Amino acid sequence: MKSHPRQRDAFYPVECAGSPGGWRARVHEIIFGIDTPAGRAFDIGLVIAILLSILVVVLDSVPAIGGRHAEAMLVLEWLFTLLFTVEYAARLATVRHPLRYAVSFYGLIDLLSVLPTYVSLLVPGSEALIDIRILRLLRVFRIFKLTLYIEEYTKLAEALAASRRKIMVFISVVLMAVLILGTVMYVVEGPAHGYTSIPTAMYWAIVTMTTVGYGDITPHTALGKAVASFMMLLGWGILAVPTGIVTAEMTARRNDRRHGTRSLLACEHCGSSGHESGARFCKDCGASLPETGVQR
Amino acid sequence: MKSHPRQRDAFYPVECAGSPGGWRARVHEIIFGIDTPAGRAFDIGLVIAILLSILVVVLDSVPAIGGRHAEAMLVLEWLFTLLFTVEYAARLATVRHPLRYAVSFYGLIDLLSVLPTYVSLLVPGSEALIDIRILRLLRVFRIFKLTLYIEEYTKLAEALAASRRKIMVFISVVLMAVLILGTVMYVVEGPAHGYTSIPTAMYWAIVTMTTVGYGDITPHTALGKAVASFMMLLGWGILAVPTGIVTAEMTARRNDRRHGTRSLLACEHCGSSGHESGARFCKDCGASLPETGVQR
Amino acid sequence: MKSHPRQRDAFYPVECAGSPGGWRARVHEIIFGIDTPAGRAFDIGLVIAILLSILVVVLDSVPAIGGRHAEAMLVLEWLFTLLFTVEYAARLATVRHPLRYAVSFYGLIDLLSVLPTYVSLLVPGSEALIDIRILRLLRVFRIFKLTLYIEEYTKLAEALAASRRKIMVFISVVLMAVLILGTVMYVVEGPAHGYTSIPTAMYWAIVTMTTVGYGDITPHTALGKAVASFMMLLGWGILAVPTGIVTAEMTARRNDRRHGTRSLLACEHCGSSGHESGARFCKDCGASLPETGVQR
Amino acid sequence: MKSHPRQRDAFYPVECAGSPGGWRARVHEIIFGIDTPAGRAFDIGLVIAILLSILVVVLDSVPAIGGRHAEAMLVLEWLFTLLFTVEYAARLATVRHPLRYAVSFYGLIDLLSVLPTYVSLLVPGSEALIDIRILRLLRVFRIFKLTLYIEEYTKLAEALAASRRKIMVFISVVLMAVLILGTVMYVVEGPAHGYTSIPTAMYWAIVTMTTVGYGDITPHTALGKAVASFMMLLGWGILAVPTGIVTAEMTARRNDRRHGTRSLLACEHCGSSGHESGARFCKDCGASLPETGVQR
Repeated sequence: MKSHPRQRDAFYPVECAGSPGGWRARVHEIIFGIDTPAGRAFDIGLVIAILLSILVVVLDSVPAIGGRHAEAMLVLEWLFTLLFTVEYAARLATVRHPLRYAVSFYGLIDLLSVLPTYVSLLVPGSEALIDIRILRLLRVFRIFKLTLYIEEYTKLAEALAASRRKIMVFISVVLMAVLILGTVMYVVEGPAHGYTSIPTAMYWAIVTMTTVGYGDITPHTALGKAVASFMMLLGWGILAVPTGIVTAEMTARRNDRRHGTRSLLACEHCGSSGHESGARFCKDCGASLPETGVQR
Repeated sequence: MKSHPRQRDAFYPVECAGSPGGWRARVHEIIFGIDTPAGRAFDIGLVIAILLSILVVVLDSVPAIGGRHAEAMLVLEWLFTLLFTVEYAARLATVRHPLRYAVSFYGLIDLLSVLPTYVSLLVPGSEALIDIRILRLLRVFRIFKLTLYIEEYTKLAEALAASRRKIMVFISVVLMAVLILGTVMYVVEGPAHGYTSIPTAMYWAIVTMTTVGYGDITPHTALGKAVASFMMLLGWGILAVPTGIVTAEMTARRNDRRHGTRSLLACEHCGSSGHESGARFCKDCGASLPETGVQR
Repeated sequence: MKSHPRQRDAFYPVECAGSPGGWRARVHEIIFGIDTPAGRAFDIGLVIAILLSILVVVLDSVPAIGGRHAEAMLVLEWLFTLLFTVEYAARLATVRHPLRYAVSFYGLIDLLSVLPTYVSLLVPGSEALIDIRILRLLRVFRIFKLTLYIEEYTKLAEALAASRRKIMVFISVVLMAVLILGTVMYVVEGPAHGYTSIPTAMYWAIVTMTTVGYGDITPHTALGKAVASFMMLLGWGILAVPTGIVTAEMTARRNDRRHGTRSLLACEHCGSSGHESGARFCKDCGASLPETGVQR
Repeated sequence: MKSHPRQRDAFYPVECAGSPGGWRARVHEIIFGIDTPAGRAFDIGLVIAILLSILVVVLDSVPAIGGRHAEAMLVLEWLFTLLFTVEYAARLATVRHPLRYAVSFYGLIDLLSVLPTYVSLLVPGSEALIDIRILRLLRVFRIFKLTLYIEEYTKLAEALAASRRKIMVFISVVLMAVLILGTVMYVVEGPAHGYTSIPTAMYWAIVTMTTVGYGDITPHTALGKAVASFMMLLGWGILAVPTGIVTAEMTARRNDRRHGTRSLLACEHCGSSGHESGARFCKDCGASLPETGVQR
């Protein structure tokens, strides 16, 4: 588990500027490092600050709270913005390649964490975009970089990556079905019943096949209900059928182990049968039994 | 399967007070023990009483029934409360450390089973809280303590405990998605369309990603419907994609077993190939075959 | 696969009356047997008649059709009823123990297939119950008795039976959660918001935890929405979490097979390591390798 | 991976007409072939054209867009139609058996891709059917013919085919439940509460059991809500219970591997027990251990 300063990572270019021992290196160790107590304390404090600042954003959106405490919210928001600005400046100051850091994924997230508040100050009427501040939440992913080193998540990530071709084809087939069946419903039901266009019908198709079923658009004609029923059984069946196949397969194998389905297998040496499932040695003469039914 | 009196369990401190043979021990055996017929009969009777008392609580809430039979309900409620109070007193009286029992999980549940009815008598206007009585239901878990000794549930509990880190990260990722996508919808749709605040949008996001889909809040803008469609496919896909991966994996292995994917494997002794899948001995010379493709 | 007449089945007591070769045995063979062409033709014809009669019931319920063709429907209904009555009489006449057959599961279904139509004739105003006729559908299960002999379904049935204790506990835990969380919502939201009684709240809880989500009752208070969110994540998570655990486990094992995680295992004879995953014999000295990491 | 011209495929009869090297063969290679750069470029260009033409159909259905740009849409539509007509003619001209191609699956799709636009020209008032143009989407499946050669999809297709009997029985059981429970709800709730006929009640039953839950029809009586609750638990449980069984089974096996559940097994030679799970040799005397509990 290497500490971040020594990672020459294209994804996270945080090599330390300045010589070891200098103030740059010490600050760099605190901000980016996780090996020292100071580094870990900084990370914990930063996560708490991020979560609190997000809480401010969330509560500010609630009319009852944001209205009544507008001033306090504003003060808190600027406090956090200044804190994160100082931290951002410190990061840029202590890495060897500040530009490379600034355009990396984490660098951009850091910038987007503070920029909206400044923009809302300079450009009147841009408060609507201020909720991009919520992207600060992505900053907590730094802490989760540790998960990259945990074996299980590496394997899970590898499994997902290995399956990405299957996943993409699966998604394409689902989208094709949504497009075709959505268009069918658009033709069958028509705008009078809520299916005002093919995109709207596709939205309804997704709502139906993923079994969400808002009910804002529902079929009214008999044929439409029949097509909808088919789509519902399809979306639910895609979950139910593989689960059933897997369960049947698994219980079959467990039953094989327990109930001696090898009883018909005859030993090659002495010809006796009636062996236990999974037995590797003939119970009567001790010779090896093949694992499947290979006879000689 | 040890009887409870001998368990010095921090979670369930019910060591018997008094000497064996005394009245305390006999009552303790009946109340806490499951080894004697009296103990088992007590448990069965207690479960029936608990379930009946819960039925009273449930029916009392139905206006048609609770209104018409208010007096009968009240009488029954006090009958059960008195019965459970006597039982509670008996428990406290027969354990060695009554205080320790009173603050344990089961002790508190026992207390909360009777307290609300007394409180509603003393403090006028507290009837709303009286439905805490429903927690009596947790008392039936005593009977389910037996499940702790059943091998399957111990393993399941161990499996869940072993997976708790994965489960927590999974929940965190889902909550992060809910927060970020909910905020996106709040910005895109806005209060005019029902997304009155970020918490409300987060509630809608959970309703959507878990595929519940009440329909009390629905997207109205085209972009909102597009984001919602993405979230629905995500919530449903989290169920569908792993199921598909598992099914593909399992059927691949079953096909391997059946169709001899070892046919290319050459025996190390005689060089012949075309062996059955899973064969452990070369069918031509009887030498061992490695389980995978290790050659020599 | 034994033909039915020779089955002395308590569940299906259809032993033949009369001597073989007599008219009883011949009719019995046609009605109950599946070995002869006549027997199979009878079964197919019967299934078609049952499905057609059900179609009559279904179409009769549609106002547009049942209203316009009321007379034709009635004629068809009586045709089928008379046909099934004759068949029922034939069954009773050709089995050795007619009473035993009449009270068996299939015997009762046969009776309920014809009785409602007669009852509606004799007792005016009982037409509402006439749709019990739909139970004729269960008669097609005779054909599916064949599935009992198909290996896969026997195993599936055994698996379900073996798991019935786990299934019952799972259902009980779900019902407990529904009762407790339903009562919580009844207290939190109250009748003003649709939660008019505890049973109604339990109905809502089931609608929510099974992710159906009609939207006829929805939470209105902030606390109610929070509790509801918890319940939705629970109901959906019960599907998502085990699927994730299984997928992680399966991909881990597949990765083990592919990437040689036995490389650290040292052979007991010669001490060499670096063996292929799944190798059973030491590649350097040919001695057996333990299946797991047992060393000596 | 054979190029298409040499496939004498009943499903895709595209054997080349004319002698190799002639203009027919060259055009055939471009249109049907995937081995040459020209063939691949043609395929890519064709997919892009198909997707763009579908985009035109989709956008044309949106009133805001289709209304404002009706002329542009029409021009684009005819452009694509002419392009696909030329391509269709080229296909017919370069295959050896044009009739056989024209009635094959892909031939019909190709025809249906261009026909509606011509029909709408000749037969006034048939614009509603013009959205059959969406079937052009199926033409992209040609590209996906490649997937037939990818091992994983072949196995998945084989698995589905092998399981088709189980899938059909599963679907039949679900449809039976929908019919019977739907009729029950029709009788219990009745047309006054939205269950206007048995087909409508069946539609509601599918909406409920697949957990879609629109909410356009909901139960109002207490008995109806109880039956509905049962159906919801059934539809959701069909997903949850097998998943739970599989997870329990898998974690049990993983625990077996890790915790030595063979500890009770006694070695046949020396009688010692306490062997590691999966151990194949007795740790005390080196003799073989059976894989299961076969003793001698």
